[in-house]
Amino acid sequence: MKKPKIVILGAGYGGLMTAVRLQKLVGVNEADIVLVNKNDYHYETTWLHEASAGTLHHDRVRYDIRDVIDRNKVEFIQDTAIEVKIEEKKVITENNEINYDYLVVALGAEPETFGIKGLKEHAFSIVNVNAARQIREHIDYNFATYNTEEEKKEERLTFVVGGAGFTGIEFLGELTNRIPELCREYDVDYKKVRVICVEAAPMVLPGFDPELVNYAVAQLEKKGVEFMIGTAIKEATEDGIVVAKGEDEVQHIKANTVVWAAGVRGSSIIENSGFEAMRGRVKVEPDLRAPGHDNVFIVGDCSLIINEEINRPYPPTAQIAMQQGEVCARNLAALIRGKADLETFTPDIKGTVCSLGEDDAIGVAFGKKMYGGKASFMKKMVDNRALYMIGGPSLVLKKGKFNIL
Amino acid sequence: MKKPKIVILGAGYGGLMTAVRLQKLVGVNEADIVLVNKNDYHYETTWLHEASAGTLHHDRVRYDIRDVIDRNKVEFIQDTAIEVKIEEKKVITENNEINYDYLVVALGAEPETFGIKGLKEHAFSIVNVNAARQIREHIDYNFATYNTEEEKKEERLTFVVGGAGFTGIEFLGELTNRIPELCREYDVDYKKVRVICVEAAPMVLPGFDPELVNYAVAQLEKKGVEFMIGTAIKEATEDGIVVAKGEDEVQHIKANTVVWAAGVRGSSIIENSGFEAMRGRVKVEPDLRAPGHDNVFIVGDCSLIINEEINRPYPPTAQIAMQQGEVCARNLAALIRGKADLETFTPDIKGTVCSLGEDDAIGVAFGKKMYGGKASFMKKMVDNRALYMIGGPSLVLKKGKFNIL
Repeated sequence: MKKPKIVILGAGYGGLMTAVRLQKLVGVNEADIVLVNKNDYHYETTWLHEASAGTLHHDRVRYDIRDVIDRNKVEFIQDTAIEVKIEEKKVITENNEINYDYLVVALGAEPETFGIKGLKEHAFSIVNVNAARQIREHIDYNFATYNTEEEKKEERLTFVVGGAGFTGIEFLGELTNRIPELCREYDVDYKKVRVICVEAAPMVLPGFDPELVNYAVAQLEKKGVEFMIGTAIKEATEDGIVVAKGEDEVQHIKANTVVWAAGVRGSSIIENSGFEAMRGRVKVEPDLRAPGHDNVFIVGDCSLIINEEINRPYPPTAQIAMQQGEVCARNLAALIRGKADLETFTPDIKGTVCSLGEDDAIGVAFGKKMYGGKASFMKKMVDNRALYMIGGPSLVLKKGKFNIL
Repeated sequence: MKKPKIVILGAGYGGLMTAVRLQKLVGVNEADIVLVNKNDYHYETTWLHEASAGTLHHDRVRYDIRDVIDRNKVEFIQDTAIEVKIEEKKVITENNEINYDYLVVALGAEPETFGIKGLKEHAFSIVNVNAARQIREHIDYNFATYNTEEEKKEERLTFVVGGAGFTGIEFLGELTNRIPELCREYDVDYKKVRVICVEAAPMVLPGFDPELVNYAVAQLEKKGVEFMIGTAIKEATEDGIVVAKGEDEVQHIKANTVVWAAGVRGSSIIENSGFEAMRGRVKVEPDLRAPGHDNVFIVGDCSLIINEEINRPYPPTAQIAMQQGEVCARNLAALIRGKADLETFTPDIKGTVCSLGEDDAIGVAFGKKMYGGKASFMKKMVDNRALYMIGGPSLVLKKGKFNIL
């Protein structure tokens, strides 16, 4: 009998967790496991705002996939998935075609620009290592250029962050820590720098405890952030953005740096492959399989799971993706061993901590509200835990955050 | 009797040396000394190629003027000179007017683009700290952006240096040391990077010993530099340069980074003020005064002195500027004391060392040819000596180069 072949697309939190759990659960003779990823490294998506602001080097944010997989059990292929041919049970990649018996789609998220004109062309998104280091260099470059021009351009020192959700707020925390350093580095007057956060919703960090949100806003304002809440970005242009508060108050803000952090969607490969999806996210079965496709699992940001308590989807997070990876691995092991009963996935939300820079944060963990140094410590423990779950203690030692107050 | 007022324009090698020597020679009651400079710091023009390539931080390349002047004797004004009104004995600055009895013009050099189309708009020049850190960031930014674009643009990794003179060669040495680091930093394939040196003259480093020039060319070629000698830049465009070898062989080279290092001229303030000059350089009297202006000295890159041995002007160097500063200070002291006999300036060329990167160089010093580590050591000693002459041992300790092989 031919060994079944399991192909995992993507080495983000969900895909990599599936791979490292599967290599423990399944024997060499039970299945061939193939992990396909665009890069030869995994990156911590939840740390990218730090690399983007330049407060953490991007090499601290990624590690070699080969360092955490057991290469006797998992074959790693560096290639970019383009489309899944569901009927033919194969994946088309940039350089090849890969057949599978079982597929795990863990392709992560893409920025969602909601059709806002010019955003794709003129705004940055904190989406991967390449983007993060480009944003960092772009910020540095504008500081470096400011003093070289006879006519001083204030837009070089104006930074717009679109979105006051999790990523937007965390990026603002890092950026406002970095700016005083940049001012010193490039002889720029701190008072000339503007950091503006534009959010279409009427609130910052929707879903978060209001008391903690107030703390976060006050802390960021103290560090110089101007919040424009209930204000929509209408258009991004070559030299800035057009915003509108209500119908009439249209305003043009000149800014060389616009970072769009107001939303993500699932991978476009989901739709291109014919899966039924909403914004690239497939409402998966309780066992994480795609409806109607018994051999295809979908985990991470491309999956959609409803939080029954509030009848709304869970936001895509690393925490959920990793938990899905664990269940997905167990379900795959069951399937190849011919078992019909698969495990149901239920998210176990241990807490949520939102960083406000290296030394500050807000959060709820184990049912307790916290802010400041304590929350910041907790955030670092959350970050270290993600490393631990995938790579064990050696990865924590190598890549962990120990700059604890 | 009113104390005479001596105004020194520029705190480069020539102007700053004049100021620090003058403050030792002249008593507080003998003269008012005013030093005017655009920035509150002096920078080592001869080290800017390192800051531009990113191999030395720009803060290592500059120091606070107030750290080396005696503020009881020299008043420092941070302002930008615009024009000298010779007849009215005053200097127009951006924010003020400054009257003088004696003037020292030490305003340094500007890039000379020989009217080549587009160079001013599309090429960088290694002219000051602002420009150097912008070049560094521009290079970094192109590396950072290369991997973010789906269609890979080779021009992001193509670097053109215009000119194979001193600055061009020294910059190439640093740049080729920096590139392997950048390739690692941004996951860029080293083989994709091109570094091209375009020189209109038929040779590299004209005036240098041919054996040493051959060594330099071989070393730089080993580090990846393509030399296009006897090739003129005809035009710089938004996306590169147009070069021509002879009349017909016109070629377009796509490059996002073009650094023009093929020549300097004196300050345009020289001509704007009505001094008789060639490319901003005044052929000064033997005592360093401007012809026909008994109270105006010109030192450094705005002065022109003929090397009688070869009947050609000395190239403007830090070495000559500092020697001029010393003579200028003594002649000013003599003048305010009513002496008519001024000292004649004769350059004393102790040697010339051209760096090929942190660990390599070629040079002639004390009549001896040298290359490699020995010449590199000598280069660092030359750099340290400039610090010593202006700021004494404490400045050498603070800013000196001790990364000696």
